[in-house]
Amino acid sequence: MSSPGRIASILIATALLAAASHADDGMWLLNNPPAKQLKDKHGFEPTPAWLEHVQKSSVRFNNGGSGSFASADGLVVTNHHVASDAIHKLSDAQHNYLRDGFHAKSRAEELKCVDLELNVLMSIEDVTERINAAVKPGMAAGDAQVARQTAMAEVEKESIDRTGLRSDVVTLYQGGQYHLYRYKRYTDVRLVWAPEQQAAFFGGDPDNFGYPRYCLDVTLFRVYENGQPVKVDHFFKWNPNGTRDGELVFITGHPGSTQRLITMAELEYARDIQVPGVMSYLKNREVLLNSYSKRGEEQARRARDELLTIENSRKVYDGRISGLLDPALLAAKRAEEEALKKFASDHPELGAADAWDKIAEAQQVIALRAPRHNLLEAYAFNSDLFGRARAILRSAAERGKPNGERLREFRDSAKTEFELALFSEEPIYADFEILKVKNYLEYVAMQLGANDPVVQAALGGKAPGVRAQELVTGTQLQDLAYRRKLYAMSAEELAKVDDPMLALARAVDADARAGRKIIETQNEIKQQAHARIAKVRYAKDGDKVSPDATFTLRMSYGTVKGVTEDGVAVPPYTNLAGTFTRAAEHNNVTPYDLPASWLKAKERLKGDAPYNFIHTCYSIGGNSGSPTLNRNGEFIGILFDGNIHSLVWNYAYSDAVARSVSVDVRGILEAMKTIYGADALVAEILGTK
Amino acid sequence: MSSPGRIASILIATALLAAASHADDGMWLLNNPPAKQLKDKHGFEPTPAWLEHVQKSSVRFNNGGSGSFASADGLVVTNHHVASDAIHKLSDAQHNYLRDGFHAKSRAEELKCVDLELNVLMSIEDVTERINAAVKPGMAAGDAQVARQTAMAEVEKESIDRTGLRSDVVTLYQGGQYHLYRYKRYTDVRLVWAPEQQAAFFGGDPDNFGYPRYCLDVTLFRVYENGQPVKVDHFFKWNPNGTRDGELVFITGHPGSTQRLITMAELEYARDIQVPGVMSYLKNREVLLNSYSKRGEEQARRARDELLTIENSRKVYDGRISGLLDPALLAAKRAEEEALKKFASDHPELGAADAWDKIAEAQQVIALRAPRHNLLEAYAFNSDLFGRARAILRSAAERGKPNGERLREFRDSAKTEFELALFSEEPIYADFEILKVKNYLEYVAMQLGANDPVVQAALGGKAPGVRAQELVTGTQLQDLAYRRKLYAMSAEELAKVDDPMLALARAVDADARAGRKIIETQNEIKQQAHARIAKVRYAKDGDKVSPDATFTLRMSYGTVKGVTEDGVAVPPYTNLAGTFTRAAEHNNVTPYDLPASWLKAKERLKGDAPYNFIHTCYSIGGNSGSPTLNRNGEFIGILFDGNIHSLVWNYAYSDAVARSVSVDVRGILEAMKTIYGADALVAEILGTK
Repeated sequence: MSSPGRIASILIATALLAAASHADDGMWLLNNPPAKQLKDKHGFEPTPAWLEHVQKSSVRFNNGGSGSFASADGLVVTNHHVASDAIHKLSDAQHNYLRDGFHAKSRAEELKCVDLELNVLMSIEDVTERINAAVKPGMAAGDAQVARQTAMAEVEKESIDRTGLRSDVVTLYQGGQYHLYRYKRYTDVRLVWAPEQQAAFFGGDPDNFGYPRYCLDVTLFRVYENGQPVKVDHFFKWNPNGTRDGELVFITGHPGSTQRLITMAELEYARDIQVPGVMSYLKNREVLLNSYSKRGEEQARRARDELLTIENSRKVYDGRISGLLDPALLAAKRAEEEALKKFASDHPELGAADAWDKIAEAQQVIALRAPRHNLLEAYAFNSDLFGRARAILRSAAERGKPNGERLREFRDSAKTEFELALFSEEPIYADFEILKVKNYLEYVAMQLGANDPVVQAALGGKAPGVRAQELVTGTQLQDLAYRRKLYAMSAEELAKVDDPMLALARAVDADARAGRKIIETQNEIKQQAHARIAKVRYAKDGDKVSPDATFTLRMSYGTVKGVTEDGVAVPPYTNLAGTFTRAAEHNNVTPYDLPASWLKAKERLKGDAPYNFIHTCYSIGGNSGSPTLNRNGEFIGILFDGNIHSLVWNYAYSDAVARSVSVDVRGILEAMKTIYGADALVAEILGTK
Repeated sequence: MSSPGRIASILIATALLAAASHADDGMWLLNNPPAKQLKDKHGFEPTPAWLEHVQKSSVRFNNGGSGSFASADGLVVTNHHVASDAIHKLSDAQHNYLRDGFHAKSRAEELKCVDLELNVLMSIEDVTERINAAVKPGMAAGDAQVARQTAMAEVEKESIDRTGLRSDVVTLYQGGQYHLYRYKRYTDVRLVWAPEQQAAFFGGDPDNFGYPRYCLDVTLFRVYENGQPVKVDHFFKWNPNGTRDGELVFITGHPGSTQRLITMAELEYARDIQVPGVMSYLKNREVLLNSYSKRGEEQARRARDELLTIENSRKVYDGRISGLLDPALLAAKRAEEEALKKFASDHPELGAADAWDKIAEAQQVIALRAPRHNLLEAYAFNSDLFGRARAILRSAAERGKPNGERLREFRDSAKTEFELALFSEEPIYADFEILKVKNYLEYVAMQLGANDPVVQAALGGKAPGVRAQELVTGTQLQDLAYRRKLYAMSAEELAKVDDPMLALARAVDADARAGRKIIETQNEIKQQAHARIAKVRYAKDGDKVSPDATFTLRMSYGTVKGVTEDGVAVPPYTNLAGTFTRAAEHNNVTPYDLPASWLKAKERLKGDAPYNFIHTCYSIGGNSGSPTLNRNGEFIGILFDGNIHSLVWNYAYSDAVARSVSVDVRGILEAMKTIYGADALVAEILGTK
C-alpha cells in the first residue's frame, strides 16, 4: 500500500541528500552573505550599502523575536505573537488588550512596556583567535571552559567600555568561530497598535503551523529615547504592491537555534533524552494552563499568553520528534557524517579524526545529568517568584567573583538586561502562582523521586499544596521595592533575610550549580571538537554551509512558492475574503470566530487583497516578525510561521514541502485602513502624511 | 506562618490515625455488613430482607459505573457521565445526543446501545478454601499463579454451567479471601432519557471534584429481554421528600479500586513509579484530545467523551499524588503498618512476620517491568483498532489451551463479555485514529527509546505519521463482518492474514506477554503475603476493616453533612436556583453556560428544590451512579462525585473535609417535570401513572 505521507517522506529524504545543490538553503551571516549562490541562481548581487541598510533596519526583540523599523520616527513592526508578552503585561482585569486590541490615536496614548528590550546590530567583529588563545593546550575541560568564558567576558567588557554599545560574543559553528556583536539597545518601547488576538491568531492552535492561513499577526511599537521618539537613519520602506508568485524574497531576523550541524550522537540524544523530557514538561504545563483557564474569564486572560506559547512549543517539539523518528532524516544525517568522517581520516593533517568520538563521550555525560539539570535549573520551578529569588541570591554570590568566572548571565556586559528582567513590573497573581508551584513541586517529585534530597528540601516536610501556599503568600518578592532592597544587599546580609522563596532558592542552589558545571564543562569539550569538525567541513565543502542559528541577525533568501500536499496544489497566496469563508466553514466557532471589527468592515474590505503567503526562505523560531523583503530591500511582508513540514528545519533544510509563512504587506495595509481606521499610522509608514 | 491548607492537612492526619474509632468508614460486603457500627452509631439494624432488596435493586454498568432499577418495568437510573460512553456511541455527525440530550417519548423510540452490559448481583459464595487448596506448599510462584487461576476458572465454569448466571471469582483483601459472585446479565439496554451534557456536567472540568455543585448528572435506560422490557421484582422506590441535614444515608455501588490495605512498599511504588507513569500518559492524551477538538465541531464531538474521561482521570491522579506526597498521610500509614508488623512478630504462630518483605521484593521486580508492561500491554497503543487486532490474535492462540491456563480475559466464563466488546458497532473515525496511533508511536518511542526492538518493530522502518496512516487505512478491522470472519479462524489460518494492524499486534505480542507473565507471577507472591497479613489484621482488629474495592457490590453509610473549608462553612445542599446564579457569575461562558431548555423553564422552576448534596459515605471511582438511600431503602439521590479532598480516599478514609456528592431526588424530579416535560417517566418512577 502506498500513501501520500510516505511519498512526502521519500521526497524529503531525497531533498536532504541533494540539498546543497539546488535549494535556497542557509541562515546567512550579514558579514558573509551567500554572494555566489544569489548571483548564480537569482542574478542578484547585494551591495555593501544594501547589506548595511538591511542590517540596521532590522530589530531584535529580546523576549525572543524579530522586527524592523517602519518609519524614521522609530515605528517598529513585529508579529502580534512576539508582542503578546508585552501586551499581556500591560493588561489587567479591566483592560484586556490581547482580546480587544489596542490603538493609540496619538503619541501621548502610546503605552510604555514594562520590560521589553530591543536591539539593533551595529557591527560584527571576528574575535575567534583571541577567544581560542585563552584556552591553552592540555588544559582540563573545566579550566578551559572558565578560561574561554573569561576571555569572552573580557572582550565584551572592553567593547562596552569603549563603545557604550551592548556587546555579545557569539559562538558560531558550535565553537568553530567567535564573533563580537555590538548592538544599539532600546528599553523605552511603547505599544502603538495591535489588532485583536482573534484576528492576529485566527484559527488558533489547529491552524498554527498549517497553510493556507488568514492571520493579521502584526503589531506596531515605537522606540523612544529620552522621552522622545527615536530618529533612525535606517528603516524599511513598505512597498504597497507586494510580490508576485516566484519572486525572489529575503528575510532578516534572529532565528533562535537550529541543530543542523550536530553529530549523530547529539541527534540521538535529542531523540532519546532531550525532546522526550521537554515534551513531558510542556504537556504537564499545557494541561495545567488549560484547566486554570477554564475556571473563568479572568483566569483565562491571565494564562492566555503563556498558554499560547506552550501550545506553540508543543507543536514545535511534536514536529521535532516526528523528524527525529523519520528514518529518511536519520539516514541522510548519517550519510553526511560518514562523508565528513572519511574526509577527516583521509586528511590526518586536520587532526579531527577523533572529534566525533569526543562529542559522543561528552554527550553521554550530559545525558546522565541533563534531565536533573533541566528540572532544578532550566525550568526554575515554573515560577516567576522563584526566578526572582534565585536571581537575587546568585547576584549577591556572583558579583564578588572576577567577571569571567561568574555564571555567564552575571557578567558585567549583561547587567542592563539582567536588571530589566529582575525589576520588571509585570503583575503576579498569587492564586495562579500557587497553582504553578504546587504543580511543579509534584512534577519534580515524580521525576526525581520523592526521596531525592533536593525534592525533600523543596517540599520542606509539607504536602505540595501546603508548601506552595506558604511559599507564594509568604514571600515579598512580588514587591519591586523589596527586590531592589535585597538586590542592594551583600551576600552576608542576604543570608539573614527570612523569605520562604529565597530559602527555597538556597535549598536547591548547590545541586543546581553542580549540574550546570558538569554540563558546561562537557559543552567545552564538545565545542573544541566541533571547532575541529568545522575545519573539516570547510576544507571539504568551503563555506557552503551557514552556521546554526544563535538568536543573532541572519539573512535567508528564497522565492514565493506554493506547495503540493497529499496531491493537492496549494497556491502561495490567500486573500482577505478567504478569512470570512474559513470562519463560515467553522460556523464562526472559536478559534474561527472573527472579531466584531472585521464583521463590521466586511462589505468595505477589498476581499482580493493578498493576505498571507508562503515562500522557501529558511526560518525557525525567533524569526517571527522577520521583515520579508524584495530585492530592493523593501518590506513586502512579515514572517510569522512555517508550515508543519518546516519544523524539521531544526535538523535539516529542504524546500520540497516545507515553507515559511508571511503576512502580505497588502493585507496589512488594507486591514489597517479599512478595519482599524489606522490611517495616520499608514500615512506615517508610507510617507504620505 | 500558618495557612488554612496546612490546618486541613493536620486535620486529615489526625483523622486518619483515629479513623477506625468514629468515622463512617468502609466499603462493606453485602454478605458482611457493618451491623455493630450501624447499630451503635445510628441505631439501625439492616434486616436480611433489607439487604437482599438493596442488593438486587442495584445494577452494575460494566463500562465502569453503578446504577439502580427505578421501576418494575426495567427502568435503570445512572449518572450521565456513566451513560455518556453509550450516548456517544449512539451519536453521529447528525445526532449529537451528548450535546442536545435525548428523550424517548414512547418505548418504540428507546435506542438500543451498541455494547453495554449490565449486571445484577444474585448471590455471593465464599470459595476461599477451594481456591487456596489449588496452590500446593512449595510451589514456584509462576506455577502457583497458574494453579490459582485454573481453580478460579474452574469454579466459574462450573457455576455458569449449573446456573447460567455470569460467575466471577473475586479476590478480596488482596488475596485474603475469594468469593464467587453470580450475576444476572443484561445486554439489551436502551437509552430512555438524558439531559444535555451541559446540564449534567455544568461547571465542567473546573467544578469537577468541587463543591458546591449544580449538576443534573442523571440518565435513564431501560433493560430489555427478548425484545420486551424486563420485569423486575426489586427496584428502589423514589422518595420525593428527600433527606434532611444530618440524616443517615447509604450508597450501594461498585467502587472500582482502592489501595487502603497496600503496604508501604506498594505505596512508595505508587508514588514513585505508578502514578508518575499514568500522569505522563494521561497528560499526553489530554493535550492530543484538546488539540484535535479545537479543529472543529465534529472533531470536538468525536473526542468529547474520551476527553472528559481523561480530564476526570487526570484530576483523580492529581489528587492521588498530592496525597502520596503528604507527609501526614505517609506517617499515618507507616504507623499503621508498624503496629501490624509488631503484632505479627509478637504472634509468630500467625507465620506472617516476613510478609511485608516478600511484598517489597516482589514490588521491586514489578517496578522494573511495569512501565514497559503498561506501554506494550495496558495502553494498547491508545487505538481501538489495535485492541481489536490483539483480541482476535490472542483469542485464536488462547482458545486451544486449557481454560485455566489462558490469559484470564479468555476464560470461558468471560466469553460473552469479550465478544460484546469485540463485536461492538461503535464507529471509528480514521482521521482521529491515525492521529492517536501516530501520537502513541511517538510516545512509546520516547518512553522506551527509538532503538528498542519492539519500538523498531512497531514503527516498521517508517516515520510515525507514515506508519500510522498505513496501519489505520490499511486494516479492515473497522468492519464488523471482517472481525467475525477472523474471529472464526484457527491460529494457523489467522497467521496467513495480511493486515497491518494484525501484524503490529503480532510484532509486540511476545514482549507484551512476557511482561504480563512477570507481573502476574509477582502478584501471586504478593497475594500469598497479603493473605498472611489479612490474618494478622483479623487477629488484631477483627473485621473492622472492609476489603479494598474490586468493582463489586459494596455498601457504604454516612450522614448528610456540610463541610468547612478554609474557614468557610459550606452547607450540605445546593438548590436549582443556585445554578442560574453560578452561570451569571461566569457570564454564562462555557463551561458555565446553561442549555436553552433551562433558560426557557427558569420562571416556572421551583428554585428552592434541593439539587446537589454532600455526605460522608465512602466512595471512589466506579461508585458513580450509586443509588443514595435512606434507612427505608428508598432512593433519595444518586452519587456522582466526591469533593477534591475525597481523592485521597484511594489510600485512606477520613470524613474531616472529604465528602461524596449526590444529585438530590427532589432536584431530579423537578427538572424532569418542569424542564424536560418527562411527566410520563416521572409517573412510572413514582408509580402514579
